[in-house]
Amino acid sequence: MFVLVNLKTYPCDPLEVAAAVRDVDEETDARIAVAPQAAHLERVAETGAETWAQHVDPIDYGSNTGHTLAETVADAGADGTLINHSEQRLKLADIDGAVRAAQRADLETIVCANNPAQIGAAAALGPDAVAVEPPELIGTGTPVSQADPDIVEDAVDAAANVDDDVDVLCGAGISTGDDVVAASDLGAEGVLLASGVAKADDPRAALEDLVDPL
Amino acid sequence: MFVLVNLKTYPCDPLEVAAAVRDVDEETDARIAVAPQAAHLERVAETGAETWAQHVDPIDYGSNTGHTLAETVADAGADGTLINHSEQRLKLADIDGAVRAAQRADLETIVCANNPAQIGAAAALGPDAVAVEPPELIGTGTPVSQADPDIVEDAVDAAANVDDDVDVLCGAGISTGDDVVAASDLGAEGVLLASGVAKADDPRAALEDLVDPL
Amino acid sequence: MFVLVNLKTYPCDPLEVAAAVRDVDEETDARIAVAPQAAHLERVAETGAETWAQHVDPIDYGSNTGHTLAETVADAGADGTLINHSEQRLKLADIDGAVRAAQRADLETIVCANNPAQIGAAAALGPDAVAVEPPELIGTGTPVSQADPDIVEDAVDAAANVDDDVDVLCGAGISTGDDVVAASDLGAEGVLLASGVAKADDPRAALEDLVDPL
Amino acid sequence: MFVLVNLKTYPCDPLEVAAAVRDVDEETDARIAVAPQAAHLERVAETGAETWAQHVDPIDYGSNTGHTLAETVADAGADGTLINHSEQRLKLADIDGAVRAAQRADLETIVCANNPAQIGAAAALGPDAVAVEPPELIGTGTPVSQADPDIVEDAVDAAANVDDDVDVLCGAGISTGDDVVAASDLGAEGVLLASGVAKADDPRAALEDLVDPL
Repeated sequence: MFVLVNLKTYPCDPLEVAAAVRDVDEETDARIAVAPQAAHLERVAETGAETWAQHVDPIDYGSNTGHTLAETVADAGADGTLINHSEQRLKLADIDGAVRAAQRADLETIVCANNPAQIGAAAALGPDAVAVEPPELIGTGTPVSQADPDIVEDAVDAAANVDDDVDVLCGAGISTGDDVVAASDLGAEGVLLASGVAKADDPRAALEDLVDPL
Repeated sequence: MFVLVNLKTYPCDPLEVAAAVRDVDEETDARIAVAPQAAHLERVAETGAETWAQHVDPIDYGSNTGHTLAETVADAGADGTLINHSEQRLKLADIDGAVRAAQRADLETIVCANNPAQIGAAAALGPDAVAVEPPELIGTGTPVSQADPDIVEDAVDAAANVDDDVDVLCGAGISTGDDVVAASDLGAEGVLLASGVAKADDPRAALEDLVDPL
Repeated sequence: MFVLVNLKTYPCDPLEVAAAVRDVDEETDARIAVAPQAAHLERVAETGAETWAQHVDPIDYGSNTGHTLAETVADAGADGTLINHSEQRLKLADIDGAVRAAQRADLETIVCANNPAQIGAAAALGPDAVAVEPPELIGTGTPVSQADPDIVEDAVDAAANVDDDVDVLCGAGISTGDDVVAASDLGAEGVLLASGVAKADDPRAALEDLVDPL
Repeated sequence: MFVLVNLKTYPCDPLEVAAAVRDVDEETDARIAVAPQAAHLERVAETGAETWAQHVDPIDYGSNTGHTLAETVADAGADGTLINHSEQRLKLADIDGAVRAAQRADLETIVCANNPAQIGAAAALGPDAVAVEPPELIGTGTPVSQADPDIVEDAVDAAANVDDDVDVLCGAGISTGDDVVAASDLGAEGVLLASGVAKADDPRAALEDLVDPL
């Protein structure tokens, strides 16, 4: 299982979470990565944790102000990037452009979407993975694997119908190891997490609990 | 072949074009429809021409100001709607929402996109049809079927890979009957047109020329 | 006082509300107008009620699909248009462009904004009027003139500081004649209303109650 | 005069330009700063050059993915931020929110706009400065002070009419010391630059030429 910890713009210490991500990743079979804010990418990558960007723009080198360039993110040490997170929804043409930009910079890509139909659409753009996150469950503590297990299975089917090579992750409300196991049982290859780890008093303990049942 | 004439915000007489659409549709085997501005829908539909909306928003009845509601468009006489035209690009989640809104109001749907990858994505959302329009050719007078025939064939393949029931149209630069025949030969079930008819001195003659070789 | 009834995409009968607006406008000193959806503009204007658009785009005649052209709105019978309603927020450059487009088509303009600082900004663009509507009060039934009277007075001051010729309206939560009087006492030249009239069982009675204390 | 060098997403070495900015700032009376991409902020600030962000989002700590938080930008060493650059146009409400976010993090603010009317609007939001940049001149090498001097003087008047404490800068096409002097003569307190320095073979020499006539 792939566990990606999205730090959003939480008031957490990105280096503390990154160190926990690095250490727990080494101790277990799970693959764990952390997605800090753009301004923190370089320092987070220097911890040795697998580092992801939260977003890249559908642009190339040139006259773009306030944008996130895939090459810059990769140079800062990112191995991959989220695209179209529910808090950063993009136009279809721009998701396509962002996937192309990320591929150009050798970044792995996860395109997020709300439901199985959109997951099929995201898969058709050829990213490495897609992630289904029902917006109404984000931040609730109620895991998608429990609140709406069909949505995960249907997302797995929708992606497979379009492109067998695209992995499916799920997110929203995941905070325990049981949630991760349930996601895996439903066919997900990974999970997106945020507050459950980033806002934990002890991020390392939170991560260990998450991957322990795997 | 389905020929959809998009009037955009051109300074044309929508009723004159609508009358031509209605008459040429009756004279030929082609299915011809016209997409006027929202404020013109009702009068255009009253001509008896098949009438389409240029856009609907991903909304329901309620607190939305300045939006286009699918039910209102249908009540005004529209049979279908374009979604995500290159001049009205939407977020992926909103294309999905607009397709759902249109289906709720029994409107036929054509989702536009730039390239085969995006056509696959659009087809995954389950519209009645998708339309590939390379943005760089729109308004040029150079038809996509001539400038880049592969893009039409690849779009047909991309849609079929996702959902065999989704028709594929093409647009951009189409202005002659040969262009329409070429589009059909490449596998397209229809074409999107705009200035070639809407800005013609004689819209009826322009339409007759377009469908004559079919 | 100017009373503008925004029909949004409510499931109301626009012609019934328009008839009430026309009749009550004639019976009283207040100026009353109605803002229907774009597809209803023409039929609403034919009732004889003063008719406004809910939105116009910052565009000219040309290649724009799914947009609302100021000239089309004016041809359909609109006398004015809302711009930047809280449900249709625009980029600063596009508010400027929409005001210019409306002026080109001889439409009266009301630019909406959230707070006194934004009201000053809106006034600097030279519309006929601005309207302050705190988003948190819209649809609540708690009038801005009661929940936060300072915001109306501060908005009047902010507009006057920039351009004395720009009228100030207020909106959000206004549903009784006392609310309208309170708004007037705070310096507002008019009010924006929506559900209080549009969703009333008897729109005419609701309007009469509103303007009765004036 | 304040000279702000925007590195956009140019393929330049941000540390080389930052070192030039730092050194030329020390050698002259002009105040010079550099605005790198978010992922470069920390390393650029460590050079000792005055460092600015290219953009901040109208958000607070919390659930925001792929956004730029003012506090993070300030912690990384930024002293100020551009807002609403023509390549990053924002909704009016979001410009207001971004100015508030920047002020909360003690960042200096420059709000960009296209023309004098929008400059007045920007000034009404209470930033430290506004910058007028006619979009049609950006990247042309034709300075606004020469192509359209009235726009600079009108922008200075528009800002002064709203708030005397708001400085006015200008940008677009500025590449020589004469352009900077001309801007100053028209009433501008500073200039925005980009390619003229960022893409120069010798950024230090380019900067020295720029400030030499001051």
